[in-house]
Amino acid sequence: MADSIEDLQCALDTFVDERDWAQFHTPKNLAMSVAIEAAEIMEHFQWSTGEASYTLTPEKHAEIAHEIADVLLYLMRLARTLDIDIIAAARDKLAINREKYPIEKIKGRATKYTDLD
Amino acid sequence: MADSIEDLQCALDTFVDERDWAQFHTPKNLAMSVAIEAAEIMEHFQWSTGEASYTLTPEKHAEIAHEIADVLLYLMRLARTLDIDIIAAARDKLAINREKYPIEKIKGRATKYTDLD
Amino acid sequence: MADSIEDLQCALDTFVDERDWAQFHTPKNLAMSVAIEAAEIMEHFQWSTGEASYTLTPEKHAEIAHEIADVLLYLMRLARTLDIDIIAAARDKLAINREKYPIEKIKGRATKYTDLD
Amino acid sequence: MADSIEDLQCALDTFVDERDWAQFHTPKNLAMSVAIEAAEIMEHFQWSTGEASYTLTPEKHAEIAHEIADVLLYLMRLARTLDIDIIAAARDKLAINREKYPIEKIKGRATKYTDLD
Repeated sequence: MADSIEDLQCALDTFVDERDWAQFHTPKNLAMSVAIEAAEIMEHFQWSTGEASYTLTPEKHAEIAHEIADVLLYLMRLARTLDIDIIAAARDKLAINREKYPIEKIKGRATKYTDLD
Repeated sequence: MADSIEDLQCALDTFVDERDWAQFHTPKNLAMSVAIEAAEIMEHFQWSTGEASYTLTPEKHAEIAHEIADVLLYLMRLARTLDIDIIAAARDKLAINREKYPIEKIKGRATKYTDLD
Repeated sequence: MADSIEDLQCALDTFVDERDWAQFHTPKNLAMSVAIEAAEIMEHFQWSTGEASYTLTPEKHAEIAHEIADVLLYLMRLARTLDIDIIAAARDKLAINREKYPIEKIKGRATKYTDLD
Repeated sequence: MADSIEDLQCALDTFVDERDWAQFHTPKNLAMSVAIEAAEIMEHFQWSTGEASYTLTPEKHAEIAHEIADVLLYLMRLARTLDIDIIAAARDKLAINREKYPIEKIKGRATKYTDLD
C-alpha cells in the first residue's frame, strides 16, 4: 500500500513543475504563503467563541477543509525546497514535546513549558 | 506497510489525551495556534532575500524543521477536531487548483486566478 | 501642540536612519514583520477564552503593550516606505466601513457585509 | 490643534458603539483580527521580490493603504479594550530598542539583538 502523503507530495510537485512555478517558490515566499493561508483559516473563527467554533454549516466546513488543505500544500512545498522530511520532523518534535511537557506536571494545564516549576 | 501520517496522527492524539489537553483544543484556539507557528517559520526569513532564503546553517535548518513540524501538528489537531481528512482535503484542493490554473494560461506566471483573462 | 503620531514617526525614522536599516525595510519585509509581531500579540491569548482575555497580570499587560507597539512601529515604517498617510488611510477606511455596515442592518451582529441581505 | 490619532480613536469608538460591536471585541478576538488583516497586507507582496515590492499600481497602492488602515483600526480597538495608550507604548518600546540595538554595534546589520556579541 502506498503512503498517502508521499503520493500527495508527488502530485503536488508535478502540479508545480507543469506550471513552472518553482521559480516563485523560494523558502521565504512559501513561509509567507503558509502564514497567509493560516490567517484564512482563522478568519472563519474570528468572531465565534471557542465552543461555537465546533458548530459549522456544511458550507463552512467545506471551506475550512480547503483552507487547511492550502496550509498543508504550502507547508509541503516549503519542506520540499529545504529538503525536510515533514513527517520525520513532526515525529521528532513530538518526542521533544513529550520531554518538555511531562504528563505528571502538565496534565490538564495549558501552561507554557517555560512557566513550569 | 503502515501509512506514516496515520501513525503520526495516532501518536499525536495519544500525546494530547495523556495531557488532557483536548479541552483547550477548540477549533478557534487551534486555528490561532497554526497561525502563531506559521509566523515563527516566517521569522527565520524576515530579513533575507528570496535567494538567500535557501542557504541555511545546519542549526537554522533544524530550527525551521521544528517550526514546520509545529504547524503540521496543530493543523492535524485542527483537522481532527473538525473530523476533516487532511490528505483527502489536500488532494481535493489540488484538483480544484488544476482547474483554476490551467497550464496553458498560467505557465511561468504567478498571477492570481481572478486576474487571468 | 505637536501631533503625537508625527513626533513618533520622526523618532522612528531617526532610529532607523542611525542604524542604516532602511536597506532591509522593503515593503515586503515590513509586511512580514507586521504579521510576525501580530502573531506575538496573539500568543498571549492563545489558550484563554474571550472573557478571560480581559484579565491580565501587570507583567502580561506590559508585555502585550510592547507587542502592540511593535506592530504599530512596523506598520508606520511600512506606510512610510509606500508614502501612505496612515491616519488619513484609517479615516478613509472608517468612512467606507460606515457605508458597508449601515447601523440599522448590522447593529449587534458580527456578520460580514457580504452576508448582509 | 487636535491630535489626529485621538480624533481617530473617538471616531472609531463611536463607530463601534453605534453598531453595538463591543460585545464581539474581546482582546482575544481583536488580536486575531489584527493578525488576519496583517496577512491581507502580506498577500499583496506574496510573490514579489523585495525590490519589486516598492513598485505598485495606483490600485494596488490604494488597496494596501486600506489593509494598513484595517490593521491600525483593530490595533487601536485592542489597545482600547486593554486601556493601553498606543502612542506611549510605542515611544516606550522605541526607547527600549535604542538600548537593545546600540548604533555602534548594529549599524548596517539586520542581526537580532540576541545574536549580538
